[in-house]
Amino acid sequence: MIPLHILSTGKALPDHCVTSAELDGRLGLRPGQVEKKSGVVHRFHAGNDDSQSGLAAAALRDAMARGGVAPASIDLLISASGVAEQALPSTACRIVEPAGLRIGMPAFDVNASCLGFLAALQVAAGLLASGAYRRIAIVASDLASRGLDWNEPEASLIFGDGAAAAIVEAGPGGCGIAAQRLETYPQGKAWCEVRAGGTRRNPRVGLLPSDHLFSMDGKRVFKLAAGLMDGFLARLFEGSGHRLDQMDAVVPHQASHLSMSHLRKRLGIPADALVDIYARHGNQVSASLPTALHEAIQTRRVGPGSRVLLLGSAAGLTLGGMVLVL
Amino acid sequence: MIPLHILSTGKALPDHCVTSAELDGRLGLRPGQVEKKSGVVHRFHAGNDDSQSGLAAAALRDAMARGGVAPASIDLLISASGVAEQALPSTACRIVEPAGLRIGMPAFDVNASCLGFLAALQVAAGLLASGAYRRIAIVASDLASRGLDWNEPEASLIFGDGAAAAIVEAGPGGCGIAAQRLETYPQGKAWCEVRAGGTRRNPRVGLLPSDHLFSMDGKRVFKLAAGLMDGFLARLFEGSGHRLDQMDAVVPHQASHLSMSHLRKRLGIPADALVDIYARHGNQVSASLPTALHEAIQTRRVGPGSRVLLLGSAAGLTLGGMVLVL
Repeated sequence: MIPLHILSTGKALPDHCVTSAELDGRLGLRPGQVEKKSGVVHRFHAGNDDSQSGLAAAALRDAMARGGVAPASIDLLISASGVAEQALPSTACRIVEPAGLRIGMPAFDVNASCLGFLAALQVAAGLLASGAYRRIAIVASDLASRGLDWNEPEASLIFGDGAAAAIVEAGPGGCGIAAQRLETYPQGKAWCEVRAGGTRRNPRVGLLPSDHLFSMDGKRVFKLAAGLMDGFLARLFEGSGHRLDQMDAVVPHQASHLSMSHLRKRLGIPADALVDIYARHGNQVSASLPTALHEAIQTRRVGPGSRVLLLGSAAGLTLGGMVLVL
Repeated sequence: MIPLHILSTGKALPDHCVTSAELDGRLGLRPGQVEKKSGVVHRFHAGNDDSQSGLAAAALRDAMARGGVAPASIDLLISASGVAEQALPSTACRIVEPAGLRIGMPAFDVNASCLGFLAALQVAAGLLASGAYRRIAIVASDLASRGLDWNEPEASLIFGDGAAAAIVEAGPGGCGIAAQRLETYPQGKAWCEVRAGGTRRNPRVGLLPSDHLFSMDGKRVFKLAAGLMDGFLARLFEGSGHRLDQMDAVVPHQASHLSMSHLRKRLGIPADALVDIYARHGNQVSASLPTALHEAIQTRRVGPGSRVLLLGSAAGLTLGGMVLVL
């Protein structure tokens, strides 16, 4: 087991709660249609004055306050957003000041789309193992609402904005990462993407208004991810001495109500083991996993010694899983 | 010392070599002016059909070929660009296929602007220490030419495109990271940036054509970085048992001829210890450090047992340094 102790977690949401009833009206749909299609009761959307780094900082402050963690005791900040705040520099360096962290501390980004938090946990455990750092803050934040194409309901109704954080250290022993796995299948890279934002589509080489918007081929993503998931779990658990039925909770990426329902049935996860916050948050991209983990800890569904399976698929297409012993 | 063995390195450049004489003509300047101002004889700019991931893949293939490394033996890919290929998904997952790496392997991005390669080395050493992976490929690629503002010569004449890669494992012992340090000073975050590309400036909340372009306040960046560098080196070496005068080579980020000349004089680095590839590459953003390291290895200026200081400043503002024993 790779030592990793989660000292505390925290979350933040924008002020503006968007109900599915409100979206019915805005999109000219019959009452109840948006909730029926999306499975979301409400989600939160940032206002134009809100910033991603501000939301990330709020989640970090929440985690520090809940854990009684002094900002100066944190010696590395990792930001793990699906979409960054801007192309250059990193989102992490824009979070340091509003979070009240120490000026001069190291800060960088890790990006693995919706599974950025899982990749960042892996990276943090490694850096703790090498002795490079002693206490690391990870924050995942995404403002999906900034890139939604409202002409594509399938890819728009399900998303919400948010941020969540975890503060980790090597810990006292007995807790950590018992198994972990990331797999990337680039044949799915164009089925879930925002083409603008970097060197591929910009004013110099050509840029369409739609390049700024999130585009998703939900059916193909679902088919590829679902087809790979059975074997993935077997590969994740292989040699770890752990089995799915030993998990105290399964915290999935909150991709959609259909994907979570499929996951539960296909893998035979008991309904009470699945942490599902989707109906009141939507899919929060990279912030989904840590927000769900935070909710599971806050509601005492999991606690010290619990075995938690983090699991999901992400743009890329990437599959990821981790068995955490808290 | 944190174990880290560089198995092999590689680089790639776009085909199109842009001489400073050509830029004199294009910008209506007297012959010799661009070279005099920028210190660059030539740099390479990607054509519209070139892609960042394609260039990154070429650098990876070069590293694999030079080291006789089988693609299937690499169990993690880390991409470390200053600016990504697109907002979503990661650049890493777009590199897997053209590099000939294994479909299904893990791949994610680490972003620390011009110091991404240094951060990725740190991350890789950690992941190797934790036993999560055994052989990791790191590739840094940037196409700065896609975001240059030709109305701002100071920030445009110095940049070139490129990619460079390193393949690392824990190694046989005796080599690794003897000291490492990253410091972020967010007061400089707006002095070197591309505001578009993420959630901050986009069509939904407001976007100006200039937001797509690289903007730099070179004087303020230089002043802040130069003022911090003396103390930074002392903090980097502290407790490591190493001193600057013991380094066999100093591989700096190739920021500009002025910054490297200042670094050499201020820190008292002998001219023959400084690896300077700037005049024939320009500032290649994240690709500068690994390209310079690759050149130092290829020309046998450094080899097994050499002590190499990687050093630089980056947008953020971030300072970074690492003592590598090869």
